[in-house]
Amino acid sequence: MHVFAEIITIGDELLIGQIVDTNSAFIADELTKIGISVRRIISIPDKSHDIIETLENSLKYANILILTGGLGPTSDDITKQTLAQLFDSKMIIHKPTLREIEKYFAKRGIEVSERNRKQAEIPNVCTPLKNSIGTAPGMLFMKSGRQIYSLPGVPFEMKALIKEQVIPTILKEFKLPIILHTTVLTTGLSESYAADLLKEWEERIPAGCSLAYLPSPGILKLRISISGSNREILKNQLKSLEEELKSLIGYQFVFGTDTDTLQSVIGRRLTELHQTLAVAESCTGGYIAHLVTSVPGASAYFYGSATSYSNNSKIKVLKVSESNIQSEGSVSKAVVEQMAEGAKRIFNTDFGIATSGIAGPDGGTELKPVGTIWIAVATPDKIITQKFFFPDVRERNIVRASITALNMLRIAIDEFNKK
Amino acid sequence: MHVFAEIITIGDELLIGQIVDTNSAFIADELTKIGISVRRIISIPDKSHDIIETLENSLKYANILILTGGLGPTSDDITKQTLAQLFDSKMIIHKPTLREIEKYFAKRGIEVSERNRKQAEIPNVCTPLKNSIGTAPGMLFMKSGRQIYSLPGVPFEMKALIKEQVIPTILKEFKLPIILHTTVLTTGLSESYAADLLKEWEERIPAGCSLAYLPSPGILKLRISISGSNREILKNQLKSLEEELKSLIGYQFVFGTDTDTLQSVIGRRLTELHQTLAVAESCTGGYIAHLVTSVPGASAYFYGSATSYSNNSKIKVLKVSESNIQSEGSVSKAVVEQMAEGAKRIFNTDFGIATSGIAGPDGGTELKPVGTIWIAVATPDKIITQKFFFPDVRERNIVRASITALNMLRIAIDEFNKK
Repeated sequence: MHVFAEIITIGDELLIGQIVDTNSAFIADELTKIGISVRRIISIPDKSHDIIETLENSLKYANILILTGGLGPTSDDITKQTLAQLFDSKMIIHKPTLREIEKYFAKRGIEVSERNRKQAEIPNVCTPLKNSIGTAPGMLFMKSGRQIYSLPGVPFEMKALIKEQVIPTILKEFKLPIILHTTVLTTGLSESYAADLLKEWEERIPAGCSLAYLPSPGILKLRISISGSNREILKNQLKSLEEELKSLIGYQFVFGTDTDTLQSVIGRRLTELHQTLAVAESCTGGYIAHLVTSVPGASAYFYGSATSYSNNSKIKVLKVSESNIQSEGSVSKAVVEQMAEGAKRIFNTDFGIATSGIAGPDGGTELKPVGTIWIAVATPDKIITQKFFFPDVRERNIVRASITALNMLRIAIDEFNKK
Repeated sequence: MHVFAEIITIGDELLIGQIVDTNSAFIADELTKIGISVRRIISIPDKSHDIIETLENSLKYANILILTGGLGPTSDDITKQTLAQLFDSKMIIHKPTLREIEKYFAKRGIEVSERNRKQAEIPNVCTPLKNSIGTAPGMLFMKSGRQIYSLPGVPFEMKALIKEQVIPTILKEFKLPIILHTTVLTTGLSESYAADLLKEWEERIPAGCSLAYLPSPGILKLRISISGSNREILKNQLKSLEEELKSLIGYQFVFGTDTDTLQSVIGRRLTELHQTLAVAESCTGGYIAHLVTSVPGASAYFYGSATSYSNNSKIKVLKVSESNIQSEGSVSKAVVEQMAEGAKRIFNTDFGIATSGIAGPDGGTELKPVGTIWIAVATPDKIITQKFFFPDVRERNIVRASITALNMLRIAIDEFNKK
């Protein structure tokens, strides 16, 4: 059975361009992953007439409607009242929700107002869906075999409801094929290069399998999807497809799967090995340190970093030799190596990484144009240095240089520990 | 005359959740700013039937339709063919576009393929709109007084076409009121606090004026809009409303207007004053340095930063006293002040800022729970220190602490230079 869904996001703020609708892409991705086709995504204002008209139209085309937004406590939030009217339903107090609201306010020592109490009202024909993160429950309405879900617009509440309530309920109600996914994470590959590399393999993979390319600055995600009827067989097939893909792309480029990040992979590895890291940054200006410290628990292996923007700070803080800066310039092999060694020595760590380059838009010369970037990784027993050229806008050059440095570090950690 | 628009974004990638539709919010914002009401935003797949059905339906409600996507060179891009069919039009070669395409390939020494040449084809009934950034032109179709714009989906090409072609054409065709805007940028204020503060003022401002609250982590933007018929009068009215708003909110919270950022405001000020900055970060982990160095030309005033995650690096690199760390802990007034002083001294700058806190999710204690953050600013003649509590998730705590530190720095620079 082919199941179609439509996503309807409700809120004036969407139509005046005040916020970007990120909810729909999340919901569409979750639905696609279980084999449901999303036919349309529609954003409409908080107007009763528009909500009813859109719903009635969408019900002609879709088995499932997912509505987000308009469930808040203020007077412009009218989704609940509109649904009650559409389904000829009266409002009742949903006791578990009222108890949650009372608990929430009691904890903060505030009295529950009439407006807050009203948040516990739901139309009596709907099935409430437990919201594990907030107080407003989701609601499920049924109409001639079709499901209509109404969810809060707050992204993290909506996400919890989709994962914990909506997807399981859909899977129970509709007979869908089993679909499994795995995402292989790569860096250093362009989309077109990867497509050429994988062309033959893509033609060879069995029916029911597909590959999606998901690019973002510095990173290319490759998602393999597979569908069928036997979960165990699919799991094994997926595992071997993943291994094939990884070995085709190569260890140098593949840094993880699914929710991994370069900094989390490095963090896990350093924690296991009881080894430590310091960073010296010039053109990346603190972004590498920011990525590394965005991982909870980074203090176990990350001791610190120095961002040295001035030559003087390179000399004074990182102990780069003044004569090297004068003879080679600060964007050079000699200087970036001394920066990496300096960071490692000063912070007393096992590994040190450093960047020095010209992020732009100014500062380029004919010999060293904007985008010229040197990266060095100092390990306990050697130093690896490479020159790159990223001729993009400042912001993206910083991101790409940082990701590239982390990937060099990942490889250097593995190589050192193999011995 | 009230003018309505609908935005239609076309692309399979939107409906499988592969990309977030950021184009629509941009377009909705641009249309809202010139006084047009956006009625719906609809995302549909690259299917001829869906495009025609959606267009015909939207034309019943809107004077202006803006379509994005589906104009690329690959076989799944079918917007152009579909519009030609809908408007009973044949394809012709658009000479200026062909010349652009030939130039593009000649520069790269590649021959123009048949597929690329086809990119220069447009339906003969449309008015081509010059794309100043890419090769594919926008297209304008007219139907009984209604305008239908078809634009490429690539965000930066779409944005250029909206600003340079679409908005001017709409303003020529439709009689719209003049609308002017200014955005006052604040930090350190919650939306509800600001709303209470501005309640009376909002009730008092003249008809035709409105205020929008645009919150993002750590920053609240307040946009004043004003409409009428005389541009000069409106400009003056807007200026005085802006001044009223600024003085109501107060200098401590207002850091700029429109496209300013805290780091660009600070950068401009330090450049003018020929003064310099160094940073010492613990819990913010490099994010302050990243913000500061995201401004082109930051090397003129930013000398460097040290991220000291380990106690040892605080002692060794920033010369924090070991006994202070032992008696007060590293998250303390004494330590954060020594970090700021240390950064200023080591990098030899006029100002030094420092953060030390517990970003979470681990590391909190009863006395110093997650979210406890100390910030210090060392000026040439004194040190300003403050304790904050940001009990949110790690990522947002880092952003808020960084923005708060930069705002303290902004005020300290002004205060020092007033003397």
